[in-house]
Amino acid sequence: MSKKVVLAFSGGLDTSYCVKYLSEEKGLEIHSAIVNTGGFTKEELKEIEAKAYKLGVKTHVTLDVVDKFYKDCVKYLIFGNILKNNTYPLSVSAERVFQATAIADYCKQLNADFVAHGSTGAGNDQVRFDMIFNILIPNVGIITPIRDMKLSREEEIEYLKSKGVVSDWTKAAYSINKGIWGTSVGGKETLTSGQYLPETAFPTQVTKTTPEEVELTFEKGELVGINGQKLSPVEAILKLNDIAAPFGIGRDIHVGDTIIGIKGRVGFEAAAPMVIIKAHHTLEKHTLTKWQTYWKDQLSGWYGNFVHEGQFLEPVMRNIEQFLDDSQKFVSGKVKVYIAPYRFHVIGIESSHDLMSSKFGSYGEMNNAWSGEDVKGFSKIFGNQTMIFHKVNN
Amino acid sequence: MSKKVVLAFSGGLDTSYCVKYLSEEKGLEIHSAIVNTGGFTKEELKEIEAKAYKLGVKTHVTLDVVDKFYKDCVKYLIFGNILKNNTYPLSVSAERVFQATAIADYCKQLNADFVAHGSTGAGNDQVRFDMIFNILIPNVGIITPIRDMKLSREEEIEYLKSKGVVSDWTKAAYSINKGIWGTSVGGKETLTSGQYLPETAFPTQVTKTTPEEVELTFEKGELVGINGQKLSPVEAILKLNDIAAPFGIGRDIHVGDTIIGIKGRVGFEAAAPMVIIKAHHTLEKHTLTKWQTYWKDQLSGWYGNFVHEGQFLEPVMRNIEQFLDDSQKFVSGKVKVYIAPYRFHVIGIESSHDLMSSKFGSYGEMNNAWSGEDVKGFSKIFGNQTMIFHKVNN
Amino acid sequence: MSKKVVLAFSGGLDTSYCVKYLSEEKGLEIHSAIVNTGGFTKEELKEIEAKAYKLGVKTHVTLDVVDKFYKDCVKYLIFGNILKNNTYPLSVSAERVFQATAIADYCKQLNADFVAHGSTGAGNDQVRFDMIFNILIPNVGIITPIRDMKLSREEEIEYLKSKGVVSDWTKAAYSINKGIWGTSVGGKETLTSGQYLPETAFPTQVTKTTPEEVELTFEKGELVGINGQKLSPVEAILKLNDIAAPFGIGRDIHVGDTIIGIKGRVGFEAAAPMVIIKAHHTLEKHTLTKWQTYWKDQLSGWYGNFVHEGQFLEPVMRNIEQFLDDSQKFVSGKVKVYIAPYRFHVIGIESSHDLMSSKFGSYGEMNNAWSGEDVKGFSKIFGNQTMIFHKVNN
Amino acid sequence: MSKKVVLAFSGGLDTSYCVKYLSEEKGLEIHSAIVNTGGFTKEELKEIEAKAYKLGVKTHVTLDVVDKFYKDCVKYLIFGNILKNNTYPLSVSAERVFQATAIADYCKQLNADFVAHGSTGAGNDQVRFDMIFNILIPNVGIITPIRDMKLSREEEIEYLKSKGVVSDWTKAAYSINKGIWGTSVGGKETLTSGQYLPETAFPTQVTKTTPEEVELTFEKGELVGINGQKLSPVEAILKLNDIAAPFGIGRDIHVGDTIIGIKGRVGFEAAAPMVIIKAHHTLEKHTLTKWQTYWKDQLSGWYGNFVHEGQFLEPVMRNIEQFLDDSQKFVSGKVKVYIAPYRFHVIGIESSHDLMSSKFGSYGEMNNAWSGEDVKGFSKIFGNQTMIFHKVNN
Repeated sequence: MSKKVVLAFSGGLDTSYCVKYLSEEKGLEIHSAIVNTGGFTKEELKEIEAKAYKLGVKTHVTLDVVDKFYKDCVKYLIFGNILKNNTYPLSVSAERVFQATAIADYCKQLNADFVAHGSTGAGNDQVRFDMIFNILIPNVGIITPIRDMKLSREEEIEYLKSKGVVSDWTKAAYSINKGIWGTSVGGKETLTSGQYLPETAFPTQVTKTTPEEVELTFEKGELVGINGQKLSPVEAILKLNDIAAPFGIGRDIHVGDTIIGIKGRVGFEAAAPMVIIKAHHTLEKHTLTKWQTYWKDQLSGWYGNFVHEGQFLEPVMRNIEQFLDDSQKFVSGKVKVYIAPYRFHVIGIESSHDLMSSKFGSYGEMNNAWSGEDVKGFSKIFGNQTMIFHKVNN
Repeated sequence: MSKKVVLAFSGGLDTSYCVKYLSEEKGLEIHSAIVNTGGFTKEELKEIEAKAYKLGVKTHVTLDVVDKFYKDCVKYLIFGNILKNNTYPLSVSAERVFQATAIADYCKQLNADFVAHGSTGAGNDQVRFDMIFNILIPNVGIITPIRDMKLSREEEIEYLKSKGVVSDWTKAAYSINKGIWGTSVGGKETLTSGQYLPETAFPTQVTKTTPEEVELTFEKGELVGINGQKLSPVEAILKLNDIAAPFGIGRDIHVGDTIIGIKGRVGFEAAAPMVIIKAHHTLEKHTLTKWQTYWKDQLSGWYGNFVHEGQFLEPVMRNIEQFLDDSQKFVSGKVKVYIAPYRFHVIGIESSHDLMSSKFGSYGEMNNAWSGEDVKGFSKIFGNQTMIFHKVNN
Repeated sequence: MSKKVVLAFSGGLDTSYCVKYLSEEKGLEIHSAIVNTGGFTKEELKEIEAKAYKLGVKTHVTLDVVDKFYKDCVKYLIFGNILKNNTYPLSVSAERVFQATAIADYCKQLNADFVAHGSTGAGNDQVRFDMIFNILIPNVGIITPIRDMKLSREEEIEYLKSKGVVSDWTKAAYSINKGIWGTSVGGKETLTSGQYLPETAFPTQVTKTTPEEVELTFEKGELVGINGQKLSPVEAILKLNDIAAPFGIGRDIHVGDTIIGIKGRVGFEAAAPMVIIKAHHTLEKHTLTKWQTYWKDQLSGWYGNFVHEGQFLEPVMRNIEQFLDDSQKFVSGKVKVYIAPYRFHVIGIESSHDLMSSKFGSYGEMNNAWSGEDVKGFSKIFGNQTMIFHKVNN
Repeated sequence: MSKKVVLAFSGGLDTSYCVKYLSEEKGLEIHSAIVNTGGFTKEELKEIEAKAYKLGVKTHVTLDVVDKFYKDCVKYLIFGNILKNNTYPLSVSAERVFQATAIADYCKQLNADFVAHGSTGAGNDQVRFDMIFNILIPNVGIITPIRDMKLSREEEIEYLKSKGVVSDWTKAAYSINKGIWGTSVGGKETLTSGQYLPETAFPTQVTKTTPEEVELTFEKGELVGINGQKLSPVEAILKLNDIAAPFGIGRDIHVGDTIIGIKGRVGFEAAAPMVIIKAHHTLEKHTLTKWQTYWKDQLSGWYGNFVHEGQFLEPVMRNIEQFLDDSQKFVSGKVKVYIAPYRFHVIGIESSHDLMSSKFGSYGEMNNAWSGEDVKGFSKIFGNQTMIFHKVNN
């Protein structure tokens, strides 16, 4: 009986190659799986399934993890206002972890001997997949044909042709990765340091020209309503994306540190994530104390980096999530956002937990809860050590 | 002989009141001084001087600290990409420290008995002024009539009228603070949590409609050229502001934690700072390592907060500056920026210190300096502890 | 009807003065209270009660908060291995917060008009008491006669004598503060920078000379057994103190930053806390991952400092506690400690969650779960960015 | 002509094996080198040289880097009071970096084709050596026979015997690594979680029984004198070690995270390092401000960890060193230490930069530079935000 391999299958050239290679050269029984983190329509998923069977897999499944992805990860990316290097909402990085986890669970279920992915040797994804597999299914062998053989597209196409698989493998100008938390765009300009992506490279074209105001409702840090309509967080993200993406919101190029030490540059379009994070951040500025904000920032930055680097299963991540959960207790209220072509800003917020309340004094205008004398004393003591330092050392 | 007081004088209602009050009620000899951190034209400074003498000061001086302000502080705000709470370039906060320091030095020079400022009891400035004075001139008494007597505008106007000073004290709709590192806008909407400033509230109106590309040249972290023209950093900031402000760039409202514990909301317009910080940050993403970025972020955030809170003289600030200086060694190169009405983005960079070089491998495409086996080994060891943790505890 | 004041009463000179002063000069009805955080015997508490009534208080109560103090604070000091500046277990600092909180609750219960404490103007306690009262009972006036009138001991004694209160007010050579989490010793040598406390100054004299081995049992970070005997954490702390204190364990002098900016120096004896923290820390080194340890250290350091500075009610403290709680999930096991006169060390640990397991490889000896090739690859990728940096810039 | 290999040679079994293997099996020309970081006497070095030539190396050199090691690294370990996980002075970790660097420089000088080290596959050293070599001499091939072939001691001895090399290879009970910054002791008990090292395992036996007082003089953070005698820092470390080691000072067992993810346990004896760090730390507690201490701690912890993990060449390390250098400006003065068998404590310090000065007020006793009113105001403002938070949310 031939051994079983679970293959993370996307329908593209690399993983199509893997199907043929793993069955014909390695004699394995192929069980392909695609994990949906919000980037695929039903039609696309059906098409991929058809491709898989046509290539000769034994079974094919779609593993839907959108809700789990939100609940276990996206939620914390929002709680932490996480933008990698203050730029990138970690769209793809975060998905990969949940795709790998779903594949690992599926391997256990099938009692698979091997797990295969189509990663090359120059990206982040190989590390994310390898690590999650090493941790969750340490006894399942990992096979990565494209990386191992350093195959070129041409070689892969040639091989597939020789196996009777003919298809239009023309490379798209840009490689696109779509998920609920944003779409990444790589290729051409992103491979240089100096050039920006053209308008046409972004998945959503700008079709709206009249500015809109949108009201977002947050409850304990989660987005639960838009313009007065109650929604589940996943629905709300999708709806906000429909509203904001046609304005060309949330586009940029990020250059950052890959897990393997080189710099990587990637374009992205993430309308809903950018609006949500800015709105949530503003609500927090009104409802959290200075030191809650300070420590949330420290922990969130780390959390984001560990998501990026595939270290999602490190137990410190669970500890940080506890902190973040607790910090959101009073992050509830409404945030109004103004959206115009290519830009948006937060208009303001309304919250019963707003710490900016004129009952206590209003900034620069009036002080009710303390006197000028109090501040005089405060200033003296607050600067006391520095005063002593300067006296002693100058 | 009457005792001498140095008064930080702006020509507005509060400090005009102070002139009369300190001379007539307190019998002090008034030496007024205005500190220019880049916000005043020569004409404005002359006008203020005339006002001072008309009110009866013994002497009046203008203390110009623009260059010192840049060299000792703004430079580090750029090195650190400092935006308070990821939003506000600390325009006013930073200036206050240098204004207070200049006033303190002037007190020493004049051998003054007292120093006076017009702060109220509800803002940050009172603490900044008090602290710097307590530290640098601990033996000079601090007088703050507006704060001490909790005076209303009406009371001040009444008093001045009684002393024969008649002027148009109509309050401007917004209180504006202008400096080289940005202009703050306070009043009306900023006193609420929910409203945004109208277009007209911002000091520069949007007059440019055709997008422009601007090339910024950085040398060891400092902006030293624009569109190929070599400039001093101060000149470059001013020139960039002339280019970008008419696009409506760098506007927002920030709500944050005041030194005295209440939340404060303030609008601002800071075209040059926002463009410079984003451009500098991008150049750093190409030229610094991951951990340089990480620690720079930690230290810069703190540095910015201490500037904000008037703790500029704390010796840790000097230690941090040494770190920041050293980190900029290779932050040299050109950054191209695209500027359109109300928005801008960085197009790309060019630097001989760019760590993103295809010699070593290009992200997602090719790996020259290592093999797939190397990454396999890396992934195994990189996730080793988490793997062990899950084996032991699950 | 005269107004009510709750007085934090210790039976010492300062608070005895307060009783007389508040009743006779201020006409207040005195309700004295002493808060026990583990430092008093039943006899001592009775004696204090008698003193209070003899001085003329209307009512006197003992508020026992030992269990609450452990559960809400000491537990986290252990979880965080908190030693201020790597030296001091925060014995007194932590108690003060719970004493102030108990007093505040009692004020609410009595519907008191005022709350009084005997703090001077040069220490930390005044800030801790003031802050907790300002936060929890903002409408209750705070009275601090000793601080306000800058009274000397002689003046206080004179006043009490004039009111017919005669007692032996001879100042003890050292001021001693005892609680469940350690005893502080201040005076004489601690007021200098150069001298150490003599043996006799420490509350427990060294009477044991034969080394002992003690086995501590931890469950989710809490000490729940000693030498095989199951105990409540509070009992365990007390019992361990009985074992270790007669060895002269846990003594030192700490010099640190007071809340008011001056340096303060204080001796202490904290046998149980020092042994528990070192044992718990060792157990964590075996059971937590590197990054759990790293972040626990960051958060714990801050937590300790905020306890020290009376900021216990800042909401970030609750967020941190959630993190700490979660981190202790697997910190269970036994720790053997060797105790000899003036010193101790941890012998070793035993835990089913020990991550140091030879199943995976033993340090410097054998590698089962990975190969030499894996580490080669790891080393290459782990140093990749630094390699690139040196190539680009050297 | 045969290719050249530089071999890091210690004279032990592993590197003796390497000499024979590399010449006889690989046909390489062997240039052995030993790097002295303070752990070897002249006699030992001569003996090692003789061994090398006897085994047939072409050339052998001793590379002395003690001064460089102090100046470029140990100094910063002192500035940072660095104890890994609050326990271990990083004795061996730090040395390895400088040994590898010296070997790399020597490879460049000889124009070597290969570099070889005797590391196994289960320790930290392999990563440290590999990384430094990858970074500094990326074109020189790395050979690690013991790791690659997973050789056992028996196999190595057998092979050597077959080549006519007969010697007493009986394994010492403990493997000892000695350097200027401490000696590590591994083996037997350290391979368990539960057992402590016996007295005899420590390199220095306890021969002193009468306590001594030692006075250490620091200048800008560096130890430059002992008991009034001016010394170079390296001399001072050696001298202090002679004084303190015979008391059994500075011994412990550390368990921590290896670079490769497993836990490693190691005993150590580091008399001088432990005394110097505690003394230096105390001097800093008197001369640095609270926030200097805070940030020094953050950066030093990281610095220590990167030294441990062989990341010494990461550029952030240079940035941190600038911070540390600057922080030591006023860390000058004398520290008195009391040393008794198995224990020591700091008696006190004397410094013209001591911030604990009764001129400003003495802790708990007297306040000259501020009033009770000042502190009242301070307390109110310092707790203002928490007060508001509790009002809004409770």
